[in-house]
Order: sequence, then structure tokens, then C-alpha cells
Amino acid sequence: MNIIGFSFSTVEAAIKKAGRKDLALIYSEVPATAAAVFTTSSVKAAPVLVSREHIAGGTAQALVVNSGNANACTGELGMVVARETAHLVANALDIDAASVQVCSTGVIGVQMPMGRVRTAIPALVDGLSSGTLDDIAQAIMTTDTFPKMEARSGQAGGVTYAVAGIAKGAGMIMPNMATMLSFIITDAAVEPEFLQKSFRKGVDSSFNVITVDGDMSTNDTCLIMANGMAGNPLITEGSLEGNAFAALLNDVLLSLAKQIVKDGEGATKFVTIRVDGAKDDADAKRAAMSIANSSLVKTAFLGQDANWGRIFAAVGYSGAEVDQLRLSLRFDEVTMAKNGIFAGEDAEIRGTEVLKQKEFTVSVDLGIGAGTATVYTSDLTHDYININADYRS
Amino acid sequence: MNIIGFSFSTVEAAIKKAGRKDLALIYSEVPATAAAVFTTSSVKAAPVLVSREHIAGGTAQALVVNSGNANACTGELGMVVARETAHLVANALDIDAASVQVCSTGVIGVQMPMGRVRTAIPALVDGLSSGTLDDIAQAIMTTDTFPKMEARSGQAGGVTYAVAGIAKGAGMIMPNMATMLSFIITDAAVEPEFLQKSFRKGVDSSFNVITVDGDMSTNDTCLIMANGMAGNPLITEGSLEGNAFAALLNDVLLSLAKQIVKDGEGATKFVTIRVDGAKDDADAKRAAMSIANSSLVKTAFLGQDANWGRIFAAVGYSGAEVDQLRLSLRFDEVTMAKNGIFAGEDAEIRGTEVLKQKEFTVSVDLGIGAGTATVYTSDLTHDYININADYRS
Repeated sequence: MNIIGFSFSTVEAAIKKAGRKDLALIYSEVPATAAAVFTTSSVKAAPVLVSREHIAGGTAQALVVNSGNANACTGELGMVVARETAHLVANALDIDAASVQVCSTGVIGVQMPMGRVRTAIPALVDGLSSGTLDDIAQAIMTTDTFPKMEARSGQAGGVTYAVAGIAKGAGMIMPNMATMLSFIITDAAVEPEFLQKSFRKGVDSSFNVITVDGDMSTNDTCLIMANGMAGNPLITEGSLEGNAFAALLNDVLLSLAKQIVKDGEGATKFVTIRVDGAKDDADAKRAAMSIANSSLVKTAFLGQDANWGRIFAAVGYSGAEVDQLRLSLRFDEVTMAKNGIFAGEDAEIRGTEVLKQKEFTVSVDLGIGAGTATVYTSDLTHDYININADYRS
Repeated sequence: MNIIGFSFSTVEAAIKKAGRKDLALIYSEVPATAAAVFTTSSVKAAPVLVSREHIAGGTAQALVVNSGNANACTGELGMVVARETAHLVANALDIDAASVQVCSTGVIGVQMPMGRVRTAIPALVDGLSSGTLDDIAQAIMTTDTFPKMEARSGQAGGVTYAVAGIAKGAGMIMPNMATMLSFIITDAAVEPEFLQKSFRKGVDSSFNVITVDGDMSTNDTCLIMANGMAGNPLITEGSLEGNAFAALLNDVLLSLAKQIVKDGEGATKFVTIRVDGAKDDADAKRAAMSIANSSLVKTAFLGQDANWGRIFAAVGYSGAEVDQLRLSLRFDEVTMAKNGIFAGEDAEIRGTEVLKQKEFTVSVDLGIGAGTATVYTSDLTHDYININADYRS
């Protein structure tokens, strides 16, 4: 899919192991309306701090991202490095440094090999004519086993526009942004406040409802750039075109988020956790995330063990308001428990069959109110431990 | 160690697999001053609800406990079963049913085979002359690999008294009580309010500062019975004897809690997490528990990987107030990072040596205030997954 006015480049800067592209650039011919969501951690990587400053004005024209080094817990020198990276890219592109977003992912606490980055930037900028968004998706992978991409097209005022996104992330995945980078680009013209609002809302119902291991990173960044080069009339809030744009953006974000869960470190199952009947939506999310993060629940998924008691236990300590005699639970369409008690041996047999699938839905009804939430998680496997015990990520 | 006036019995009631004692009784010749702490989960097992009622009066004379079935998520029938168990034991002992505490541990959501319990109770009561506290510690084991016991003696007014405790728990271990049962008995005479206060305080700094997998159970119960049969003058708050009793009780509780972490499902490391310099003690505990529960940190312990960045990341998302440029970290005596940045290659080498030990301490200084906390955790291993994926606990 062609997204007008964006170009792409990747190079091997030798930040991580040889033979892998590890420095990437996305560039828009014109300044783009931009919005970003960053990690809520108190320990923020230098590039997060710099990018947050740069995006305050609501525009961005370039994004430089490296894998192999997070530039986190690197003190003042880390800040100098992140700023210099933005400046070098800005100079080479002849744009303002504040128009450059900087992102990093990789090992924490190691100083960036800035000499190599410095050396690589001219070739990075020169390569802009030949790269693709797919190349960027490849270059930002760390423990990811496949690149994550999604693209859709929409129409506004008879003009077709495109929205494309990429993401990386496999471990340290948890709501409120996890070691997760996601970049969305669109050639649509979108009213800045509406872009920001629909983007935040989309992130909340996609990247903020997935969890792999409950860890959150220092570097998480989700960024959107809308350069308006499709030439459509400005998309605004409340219009039909605005609603369509928001829906399409949600689709792209949710697709990327689900790809991250499917690539969860060592994951063999993709599980949708749906909670209904909660006091309110916040309570529903509390219960759903508690289930989604429980090591005991996640190992039962791996073992294909219809151990529904562990799910009720996770709901019990979630902090959500619960009446244990009103709790119900289904695995797909199989009722496992109703009014707090077991549905019987037949449910056990049929529920176990559900858990043998690669994808299934766990539905809990708290039976109290109208609150609802859906989150996505994976199982906890030996490969998760192999990846994280044996590999310095 | 002899604890005057207590007797013990265990039988095989066939609640769990054959060949294992699974029903146990502790009995005091006289009504004992008693205090208990129960799970804070909203999903509470029937025996927890019944025992909470029974202990409201501040005394107990008997405790009946089974393993193999949690009697949790069992609805009204579960309540009937728990009440009947207390009544049958009370009748056989000729005491009041409200003097009987009932505890269960095992699989959730399966109805108790009450016929077998009913049949077993006469033999259970008859066996009181011959059992030991060790037998009880054995009978309450589920995934535990060793029984957990501790005993101390103290003096008050020239009279020697004993405090002995047992515990079970290996998975689902998390503060605020996890699938954890612990029973403390003492023949000391202790003023009831002081017993309650010192017990709650002791539990807070022992069972509530350990974590294995972050899960909390429906059945957690920690109980103390003090029957006064040592004949000492009443131990009261603020006295030298009171302070000595509280210290001794703390020792017993902390020893039992540490044994649970050491027996953490699949654990190969025992790790003390100490946080200093926090805004206050609550913030320090928040940071310490976040480290102790991080799957990424716990797999790094398994891998003996001095990946200190993951520890800072866990502090960052803990919710504790953090200035990332003031963070410091030590593995035992080796400074890994200071003022937010890495201490260098030498630290890496020496820090890795620390992690090769079976036991070590991770110390984080937030550099902000005087808040402090210590918690205990284990590594996350393949055996944790084997135990919980392949075994219906």
C-alpha cells in the first residue's frame, strides 16, 4: 500500500549482532500532525524524554529508531546521545531537530555506541529512496519472531487515504505500554485535536488491553504521523468521515496489538478474556487483567487444564467488586461454572476440548452490573523462561 | 518440643490420592485465646467464612484441616459441609462447634467428599493421644516438597513456655496471604488483645512480605492458639516479657515464611529484596514487591544474569515515587548501578558471581527518603511451569 509522502530507510549500524539492520528512519516530505503515547513508568529511557519534548508542538517529520540498545538507565550521557541523534538526522534532512522523534529498544543500562550511530546516519538518510515500511518493521524486532504490520484504506470527501502501522514487542508486554514500539503513518489530513483524541482512545482499547508477562518497559512509545498528502478535506470529530477514520485506526491498532500477543515470548495460545456484569468498566478491566496476568491461570492454559477455580481465584484477588455466588464462567460456549459453582463433569470434558484450541475466549460474568472489558493474553511456557533466562534482552 | 495441653492426630480420609494422610486435628485441653488472619480475596472458601465466624469470640479449642480439596467455589453446599465438619469434630470432643476452626487446601471448585470426612472423624479424634505436630505439618502438604516447622521457647515470670508453628504453601504465594496455611500454637498465657496485635504485626512482616508467583488464594489462613497451660503470669503489651514474646513469635513466623519461599514451586534461588531510601515504608514495599513479582527479573535470577536494567524497570512501573537519576542497586555487596547508571564491566562480572549463589540479597536505594522494606522471593523456573501446567492443584 502506498502512503503518499512517506519514505523509509534501514541500515546496519552494528548496535546489535552483525547481519541485522538495527537503525531505521521514517520520513515525511512535509511536517505531519503527530501524537504519541509513552511509557507511564517512572524510569523512562532518554529517547522517551527527548521525544516527549519534541512532540509537544503536535508535529513530527521524521522518526529515527534503533534496536539493540534501549538507551535507558544511561543518565545524562544517554540524554546527550538521544539529542545528538535527533540533531544529526535533522541536519541531514534539513529539518528542525524538534521535528524528529527518537526511539530505542533493546538492552537497558548500556551506553549507546554513539560512534557507530554517528557513522551510520548519512547512509541511513541516503537510503530513503529505496526502503519500505516492511523494512522498518524488520529492523525494530528484538525477541519478536515475526514483523508486525497492518494497513487499511479509507475515504474522505471522495479521496482515498491509507493508514499503515508497524509494531514490535513480544516480552515485557503489559497495559499502559510495554516494551513496545508502534508507529502509525497515514497520508490522511486529520484535524490535530481529533487525531490525538482518536489515537489515545485507540491505544487504550488495543495496546493497553494486552498482557504477556505483566512487565512494563522504560521505552514504550506509540506514535502516529498524519501528513495530509492524500489531499482529502480535513477529517474532523463527529463527522461520518471522522467516525470512519477512528474505526479504521482502531482496527489497525487492535490488529497490531493482537499480533504482539500472538508473538508473546514462548506463547502457544492466544486467549481473549472477556468480563461482563461488573460494577463498571474499570472494575471489569481489573478482573480481566488479573486473570490475564495470573501465572497459575497462564500455566493452566499451557497445560490445557480446565482449572476454572484458578480463574475465580484471580477474580477474587483482583480488587473488583465480586459476589462469589453470582460468578459465572464460560470457555468459548461451554459453561464451566454458574452462580459460583462447577457446572459438572460434562463441562470439564467439553471445556478441556476448548482449551486444546490455539485460540479461545474465557468469559466471566460477575452478575452485578453492566461493566464490561476485553483483554488479550497468552499462556506461560517453557520458552518464555528459555528466552528470558538465557538471553540478555 | 513439648507444648503443654495440645494434642494432634492425622488420618487418611481418601480426600486426595491414596497413601497420604489428608485430615488432621489439633486440640487444646482447654479453650485457647486465638487470633487469625484470612485471605483478603473476594472469593473466599467456605471454611474461611465459617472459621471467621467462629473466631469472632477470640477463642478456639480445636482446628480441623484437610488437604486435597479447598472447598472453595462450592456454593451453599460447601458452607453446609464446612459447618458439619466443625459440628462433628465438636460433638466428638464434647466442645462447642464455635470453638472449632476449619481449614481446607487443595483443588478449587470440587465438592468435598463429605461421606469420607464423616467416616474419618471418629478415628481422627481417637488418634489424638498418639500424634505429633510434625504429623500435622506432613498432612497439610500439597505441592510442598518438605514440611515446614519452627519452634522456640521463651520465659515469662520464671516460667518456660513454647511457641511452635507449622505452615504449608509453595505456589499461589503472594502477600496478604496466599494458598498458605499456618498454625501457631503456644502454651503461654497471653493477654488476648496483645496476642491479636502481635500476631497481626508478625504476619505483616513475614507471610505478607513473601511472593512466589503473585497469585493469592481463596483459602489462606494463619491462626494462633495460646492455651496458657505453661502457667506463666499473663504476658501483656509493653512489658519486657511482652516484647520478648512478640520477638519470638516474629522469629517463628518469619522462619515459616522463608521456608515457604525456599519451597516455592520449582524455585532454585532464595532472594531477599531490600529497598531503602523510599518516600515512606509503603512506597518501599511497593517497589520491593514489584521487583519480587516481575517475571523478567525472576527469569534473570534463574539465568544468573546480572540484568540490573530489568530491576530498575520493575521499580519504574511499581508506582513508587522514583527519581531515576538517584537509583542505586547492589547484588550483595557489589554495586551494580549508582545514580541511575551502570557501575561498569567489573560490576557485571562480580555481580554475576553473586547471582550464582543459592541465596543473595538485591538492595535498591531510591535515594529520596527514609522508607524501607524487605521482601523475599524466588526465581521463576521450568519446574514452576511443569508443576502448574501438568498438575491439577
